[in-house]
Amino acid sequence: MERGLAERLIDRETLGRLTELADLDPQLVVDDFTTPAALAALAEAEVIVSSWGCPPLDETVLAAAPRLRAVIHAAGSVKHHITEACWQRGLEVTSAAWANALPVAEYTVAAVLLANKQLLRIREDYRARRTRHDWQDAYATTGNYRRTVGVVGASRIGRRVLELLRPYDLELLLHDPYVTAEEARELGARSVELDELCAASDVVTVHAPELPATHHLIDARRLALMPDGATLVNTSRGSLLDQDALVAELVTGRLNAVLDVTVPEVLPADSPLYELPNVVLTPHVAGSLGGELHRMAAAAADELARFAAGLPFAHPVLPQDIARSA
Amino acid sequence: MERGLAERLIDRETLGRLTELADLDPQLVVDDFTTPAALAALAEAEVIVSSWGCPPLDETVLAAAPRLRAVIHAAGSVKHHITEACWQRGLEVTSAAWANALPVAEYTVAAVLLANKQLLRIREDYRARRTRHDWQDAYATTGNYRRTVGVVGASRIGRRVLELLRPYDLELLLHDPYVTAEEARELGARSVELDELCAASDVVTVHAPELPATHHLIDARRLALMPDGATLVNTSRGSLLDQDALVAELVTGRLNAVLDVTVPEVLPADSPLYELPNVVLTPHVAGSLGGELHRMAAAAADELARFAAGLPFAHPVLPQDIARSA
Repeated sequence: MERGLAERLIDRETLGRLTELADLDPQLVVDDFTTPAALAALAEAEVIVSSWGCPPLDETVLAAAPRLRAVIHAAGSVKHHITEACWQRGLEVTSAAWANALPVAEYTVAAVLLANKQLLRIREDYRARRTRHDWQDAYATTGNYRRTVGVVGASRIGRRVLELLRPYDLELLLHDPYVTAEEARELGARSVELDELCAASDVVTVHAPELPATHHLIDARRLALMPDGATLVNTSRGSLLDQDALVAELVTGRLNAVLDVTVPEVLPADSPLYELPNVVLTPHVAGSLGGELHRMAAAAADELARFAAGLPFAHPVLPQDIARSA
Repeated sequence: MERGLAERLIDRETLGRLTELADLDPQLVVDDFTTPAALAALAEAEVIVSSWGCPPLDETVLAAAPRLRAVIHAAGSVKHHITEACWQRGLEVTSAAWANALPVAEYTVAAVLLANKQLLRIREDYRARRTRHDWQDAYATTGNYRRTVGVVGASRIGRRVLELLRPYDLELLLHDPYVTAEEARELGARSVELDELCAASDVVTVHAPELPATHHLIDARRLALMPDGATLVNTSRGSLLDQDALVAELVTGRLNAVLDVTVPEVLPADSPLYELPNVVLTPHVAGSLGGELHRMAAAAADELARFAAGLPFAHPVLPQDIARSA
């Protein structure tokens, strides 16, 4: 994993569990498999615990790791380091994608509740007025009662968003080409086509993977379908939106947005998205941040315990999962 | 109820139900019981549907309403219009306090998730930097994992906050002098003294009623107990906090706050609370706002249906409830 991550990722409790479960050197954290120390460890290793910044486990790395049987990824996607060679070798792979989905879903829930209540706009409005005002008149269509939230993608995150929003009096829509109407109902949502979702939702939140098929999934036409005053939430990847078209809608004030991801990932300093009052822009932090990293490390320790006990992983990653996932 | 409220409160669906259930004139909305139209209606009325701004139902009003048997309050507290005379008369009273509690709890949930994630601070930080930055390093202690949230008051709102926060990986504390340790456990929380709650919580959220005993419940000493970087959320009444002491803590940046209520209710234009970046200040809108009013009207229609069918109210207000409630 990348330098400096291990100290933040692995809290004392989890470090204790990891060293109890395995012959593990807490000092040996590598971001390069070609160093002598890394090669010496690979020669013996049965399990790799990886996280963000792990280099690809290609044929050369695998050749140096004759005893390797499993990779436990203490982070979300394994796309960047689990290669075809890993599958051919028959490695068992698990990831903490489920654990990394939780903070993203929680960020989204906060964004939905805020957006429907227009909380930040009211805050700005009160700042500007500083007098008695008929807020009921000014915000007559606001609130979280019987508003419609459209979830794009029944990913882990999308499903968790639906689950967390179920106790609220919200109409939940779901678009996912792989989910049936009945499955959507079980998730508490109504399955709809994406155009209908955009046209009917007060908040549209995107939880689909970044794939060629999802590039600019929310394009200018679909943005135009969204009702005046609606909010777009994106915590997936910037490429899923036509960002230029979105900026055009945001600059007029017709739509609002909560954006944790953009193209490029740090926006140019002159991007209007930084300053627009109807935009909440954050620097890709919806996923595990700060103490939330500890949940991914705890998940890795749980999987290591299962492996050590001869049990299958609770959250295995299979080769066929990769094509459809983020 | 106050002028202009009825049109916002009662949506078409509920108006249809009300007029089906009762001999009700939708045009007859009064904010003064002494007008000829009001007196004529009182002479016949069996039920009053009231909301914010209803004048007190004192002996004079009751004397003009010989057939009156029930008051259905399509809002929260009945403190301002249900008098001792109403209880002596044996009126049945119900309120939509439960319905008004929901948006307050939802606002609080959003505030808790935002506060733990430091979302608004990160937004400001990104706005100011506009470059690549080590966010994990800068926000190493942030996030919604295993943080502690202290709920002050097991009121309807406090209980709903606990219920809505249960699916998150948060440590929930509760202080309420009327709640046992076991009851707190059933609510998913650990019962603690208020000092301990303040000292241990990353977010303290106040849901106690405004009573002489709760005046400045969160005083300078208890604010000082709160850890650096903690957040105080107040959606109850401004008087429950020592606001001067709070401002002193907020100006230094040691604490953060989300305040929907203040003393006075519109702050002087020079109050630092308007501008402080670590404060979210809103003008008493956490309760039912905009479309959320419709839920209170629907609740009133439900109670009217029960009354018309000879059933007891689902949410009766009893004289002994008043002393302990908001």
